[in-house]
Amino acid sequence: MNDIFIHPQAIVESDRIGAGTRIWAFAHVMKGAVIGSNCNIGNGVFVEGGARIGSNVTIKNQCLIWEGVTIEDNAFIGPNVVFTNDARPRSPRLDLVRERYATKGWVVPTLIREGASIGAGVSLVCGITVGEYAMVGTGAVVARNVPPYALVYGVPARIMATVCRCGLTLQFQRAAATCEGCGNRYQRDTDTVKWLGPKIS
Amino acid sequence: MNDIFIHPQAIVESDRIGAGTRIWAFAHVMKGAVIGSNCNIGNGVFVEGGARIGSNVTIKNQCLIWEGVTIEDNAFIGPNVVFTNDARPRSPRLDLVRERYATKGWVVPTLIREGASIGAGVSLVCGITVGEYAMVGTGAVVARNVPPYALVYGVPARIMATVCRCGLTLQFQRAAATCEGCGNRYQRDTDTVKWLGPKIS
Amino acid sequence: MNDIFIHPQAIVESDRIGAGTRIWAFAHVMKGAVIGSNCNIGNGVFVEGGARIGSNVTIKNQCLIWEGVTIEDNAFIGPNVVFTNDARPRSPRLDLVRERYATKGWVVPTLIREGASIGAGVSLVCGITVGEYAMVGTGAVVARNVPPYALVYGVPARIMATVCRCGLTLQFQRAAATCEGCGNRYQRDTDTVKWLGPKIS
Repeated sequence: MNDIFIHPQAIVESDRIGAGTRIWAFAHVMKGAVIGSNCNIGNGVFVEGGARIGSNVTIKNQCLIWEGVTIEDNAFIGPNVVFTNDARPRSPRLDLVRERYATKGWVVPTLIREGASIGAGVSLVCGITVGEYAMVGTGAVVARNVPPYALVYGVPARIMATVCRCGLTLQFQRAAATCEGCGNRYQRDTDTVKWLGPKIS
Repeated sequence: MNDIFIHPQAIVESDRIGAGTRIWAFAHVMKGAVIGSNCNIGNGVFVEGGARIGSNVTIKNQCLIWEGVTIEDNAFIGPNVVFTNDARPRSPRLDLVRERYATKGWVVPTLIREGASIGAGVSLVCGITVGEYAMVGTGAVVARNVPPYALVYGVPARIMATVCRCGLTLQFQRAAATCEGCGNRYQRDTDTVKWLGPKIS
Repeated sequence: MNDIFIHPQAIVESDRIGAGTRIWAFAHVMKGAVIGSNCNIGNGVFVEGGARIGSNVTIKNQCLIWEGVTIEDNAFIGPNVVFTNDARPRSPRLDLVRERYATKGWVVPTLIREGASIGAGVSLVCGITVGEYAMVGTGAVVARNVPPYALVYGVPARIMATVCRCGLTLQFQRAAATCEGCGNRYQRDTDTVKWLGPKIS
């Protein structure tokens, strides 16, 4: 692997890491984890085998990313974000559940779509999807799907606003919005926000 | 100590660790910590001197376990769970509180009973007990005692359902329930759920 | 640097650390971070360049302290506390926001005043100030300013009581309170609590 920076105090056991990716101190990327190119994997991050991370993804310090988690390109995962992959966890050495943990049938997937941002200290219940360019606020607990372009926060996280790909809040007039910052254009149909395209110049 | 796996990048200063226990990278077990047999102590976990952990316990990555915390056999502590042991913390070098911190009188205990599960990203206020086989949901803040077999979540954590030893939600008919998954049987008396025994075959 | 304790498994790249400060295992203090004297920087703490920490400060395990964060003397930062410094985070490699991240104009400051305590597992939205000797409870999400001497908790954190410099809850009679523990005296004017001085002996 060339063009990859691995801090001398990181542990990297995967050989499926894209060019230009940087992995910082005390991070641990296990065998079987897949990470794309030009990612930034922060200090103390843990990526388990079976996790899949796209390209141009920023993962801030101490995030915990398990088997069953998929993070698409250009996403931002803030510091101390914790994913989950077991809906009803018990100690696997408890006799009663030994059979359940004998296969990987218990793993529940989670999907973070293209360009989404997850704020600091967020916990995500497994089995949910965070839509493209959605934004989850600091300290939220995400317990259900987050639609594309939604800003959510709180416990449980609820929709509070709609945000542009650049991160600014959109002001809709009837069903249309143009970002005051970057000029990207959107349309809202019932519960769905659709990107129409970049600034018209 | 034989039959104990200690990752080369872990720091283990305690000699009171049971056979079959595995301690992973960047974990730190301090002198005076007690850990039973067949435990799994995850990447980045910190166990302070004076903490007591039973056998067959799973402690996922980055949990922080202090003096005053006791975790019984077969418990599951999810990733990024943080315990506490000081009800009114101040910097101990502040003149006004120097006397308070001169002894260990300030340490408030916390108890996690047999088979309980604590979800990812949970914070626990000190002085509470989580009852046997109770389950605390992702991202909850536990501020009071959790009864045995209760499923709690939210901030502060509230009782939402009753769960079986195997983790499934129980459906009570009058005061009796049989788990649809594993057949264990329970009885409810006022506020208490009591285990009656395993499946009758 | 003399009189500074640095654990052999810590990484310290800053040379601006005061006498008597101790930095524990797996902590990482980056170049450009400023830390005063007699601080205790816990296991796994991360301090970014540009962060400023006063003297006699306790920072418990795994806290994440970024550029833009200032922590004054005698403060207590509990375990797993996460700060933030970006109000609308996106992956900086996303074309649309590359210009925004080209300078440090996006950094939003946060200030923890003299003697304040931040509880375990707290997340702080950037741009806020926690007033002197205020106390933030376990698991709170701080989304607005916290007045001096206020006890706040919940999501979002709300004022629940007023606390003394020593940490005990104050009982006001009309606008005046004397701490039953240490004798410090306070006066309340509208929304402000003012310290009048120590015990009269």
